[in-house]
Amino acid sequence: MQLNHKRLSKRFNKMASIGATDKGGVERLALTDLDKEARTLLLGWAHNSGLQTRFDDFGNIYIRLEGQDNTRKPIVMGSHLDTVPKGGKYDGVLGVLAGFEILESFNELSIKPDFPIEVAVFTNEEGARFPTPMLGSGAIAGIFTKKHVYEMKDDDGIRFDSELERLGYKGEKNNRLSEFEAFIELHIEQGPILDELQKPLGIVKGIQGLSWHHIQFFGESDHAGTTPLQHRKDPLLSASKSIQRIWEWASNLNDGTLVTFGKISVQPNTINVIPGIASFSLDIRHPEKSTLLRRIDTAKTLIREVALEDDTQSLCEDLSFMPPISFDPFLTDVFKKCSEDKGISYHELHSGAGHDAMYLNKLGPTLMLFTPSLLGKSHCEEEETNWSDIEMAVQILGDGVFELINKKQALNSK
Amino acid sequence: MQLNHKRLSKRFNKMASIGATDKGGVERLALTDLDKEARTLLLGWAHNSGLQTRFDDFGNIYIRLEGQDNTRKPIVMGSHLDTVPKGGKYDGVLGVLAGFEILESFNELSIKPDFPIEVAVFTNEEGARFPTPMLGSGAIAGIFTKKHVYEMKDDDGIRFDSELERLGYKGEKNNRLSEFEAFIELHIEQGPILDELQKPLGIVKGIQGLSWHHIQFFGESDHAGTTPLQHRKDPLLSASKSIQRIWEWASNLNDGTLVTFGKISVQPNTINVIPGIASFSLDIRHPEKSTLLRRIDTAKTLIREVALEDDTQSLCEDLSFMPPISFDPFLTDVFKKCSEDKGISYHELHSGAGHDAMYLNKLGPTLMLFTPSLLGKSHCEEEETNWSDIEMAVQILGDGVFELINKKQALNSK
Repeated sequence: MQLNHKRLSKRFNKMASIGATDKGGVERLALTDLDKEARTLLLGWAHNSGLQTRFDDFGNIYIRLEGQDNTRKPIVMGSHLDTVPKGGKYDGVLGVLAGFEILESFNELSIKPDFPIEVAVFTNEEGARFPTPMLGSGAIAGIFTKKHVYEMKDDDGIRFDSELERLGYKGEKNNRLSEFEAFIELHIEQGPILDELQKPLGIVKGIQGLSWHHIQFFGESDHAGTTPLQHRKDPLLSASKSIQRIWEWASNLNDGTLVTFGKISVQPNTINVIPGIASFSLDIRHPEKSTLLRRIDTAKTLIREVALEDDTQSLCEDLSFMPPISFDPFLTDVFKKCSEDKGISYHELHSGAGHDAMYLNKLGPTLMLFTPSLLGKSHCEEEETNWSDIEMAVQILGDGVFELINKKQALNSK
Repeated sequence: MQLNHKRLSKRFNKMASIGATDKGGVERLALTDLDKEARTLLLGWAHNSGLQTRFDDFGNIYIRLEGQDNTRKPIVMGSHLDTVPKGGKYDGVLGVLAGFEILESFNELSIKPDFPIEVAVFTNEEGARFPTPMLGSGAIAGIFTKKHVYEMKDDDGIRFDSELERLGYKGEKNNRLSEFEAFIELHIEQGPILDELQKPLGIVKGIQGLSWHHIQFFGESDHAGTTPLQHRKDPLLSASKSIQRIWEWASNLNDGTLVTFGKISVQPNTINVIPGIASFSLDIRHPEKSTLLRRIDTAKTLIREVALEDDTQSLCEDLSFMPPISFDPFLTDVFKKCSEDKGISYHELHSGAGHDAMYLNKLGPTLMLFTPSLLGKSHCEEEETNWSDIEMAVQILGDGVFELINKKQALNSK
């Protein structure tokens, strides 16, 4: 596959100028005017090249290169164009522009495989505006109902469907991507592993499972000045002890178990009142389902033990559970082989974050590729990836898709 | 002193009916219609007994029994009529109604001492509506400027001075209490000490000092799913470790040092994001100034040590410092003697909470007496004190004031 890396670079810069921040980042939240501008730019390039485009009833965009037999399931690449507030210029955009460059190159080289090839752009992947991540991909995978998605509101109370309509992106249901030969998402790692190992490419084994919990400790709210220490039942002491213990336990496991306490609060939250209730969130992750379930159990046990020691009451509410997923072995082998052929030292790893590929995996064979994130920084303006790594990853994506077409065609002609 | 305990009990019940809550408490926030109703009730009783009344420019009320020489400084008793939301029926009211019962009894017995005797009701003691406690007493003691007090707003943006005007309690500046022979405030303990020791009366040595601090830890905000544990700089871990350490250190001191962590928060406070900043409040109290200062130093050292261990940054901002105060030794001796004469086993203790007497202490000789709070409960509907303990305390208050008059008169006639 011969790709036009210079054009790709220009297009990255052009796309990064839409919502560019002072410090070199990008802020382009889903279904804003800036998101529309980015979509218009991409579709303009597609139309100039004579490629077909469509969008579905969630505003997901598809750019299509017709194949020899257009009744066949497509091979699809893609990701998203929306960002978090003060985000970076590669998160999401990479998978879209890389896929589009490959589509353009196929088109220019007049390569016409048996299958159609598509590039997909999914709406509201970040969950930064409408507060559910991977909303567009989850919707077509049947994870969210249309009603749920349409009624979602941003912080200003503006509905998803009204923004979709305002921007002219409320398309037809039968335009949805519903099946495919393969879906491949190239994305930045958003973690430090590849950068630390000095590996230019990651082949993603799957997405780790995650479990979210709301932990509460109940004690006795009292006057800070009149209640002797030995009389107190302070739920914040229990909460902070639990956080320490769960952290130490998980650190000592050293097996990839991740625990995060992202939220904490107390009631009544007054400087001179001993809290009556302390709450915090627990996010536990592990790539294996059975291990993840055991980890959740142990964390809950640690919490109950603290409550018993402190004579407080604990309550652990389960908020959500996403089992780990594994990507397609056939696709994995194809891309490993391509990397080896090019002499690229890849690393196999799990994705710590959710991605559109997570839900697409429910519709057909799926794989993700990662480029390194320098120092692991992500969702910030400092997010960076070496351009040479990007060029290499896009090349492997192209080679892999080309190889895939050949393999599938060979299989079909047997 | 012969007091009318039956009348006192009736008046307590009548006062508790104004703002009565379902569960036996009282909710009567400062300068509300209910506060006005309580003030009107009290002033009605005073007018019926032919006592003089006035109110000053902060709405503080004074009921006065004239003495032989009305140019002399008065002996004053008093407290407040406002409550916290869902508060109890004795907090504040006790000092007002007890003082008023004694004033009435003097009046009925036609006892006319050299000095005038007054009962004072201070505005917004709780700080529950206008968010500075002891606002009325602090204002006349010169702690707060008139501008500051008048411009204070409640949660609905309503100003102190406009409420004062609306209720008809914006009086004259020269009505303020500015000097006195003695100020004595009878109050509920609001802590468990007397109840635990089974002592019916507390003679208060002073009010412990307090120091408020805003502690911040700065780490690195990162993605919960992609950042290995050993890569993290989690400021909430530092905060929770500090809370544990300060608590354990203070508990082991066992010398009356109190530490409270009433507020805590993290940024960005998102379930799947490692916090970048964790903040909590530290309230430290001790009855001796030099000890309190040492305790603050040690707590700050513990915080810095945690930051060093965790490779986070800490910042400790001092919010306010109130040095301990000691009540008047002459007044203390008078009330001790009265208690001993009645065979009452009192306990000397420090007040953990602030009271109007704290600021009044700046204007003249001041003392507080405490009745027990059952189980130490306060600022809640369950707040309770045995009526027999109240009768006894009011009696001692009356005896003490009577004795004080005699002693002062004897001193003057020398």
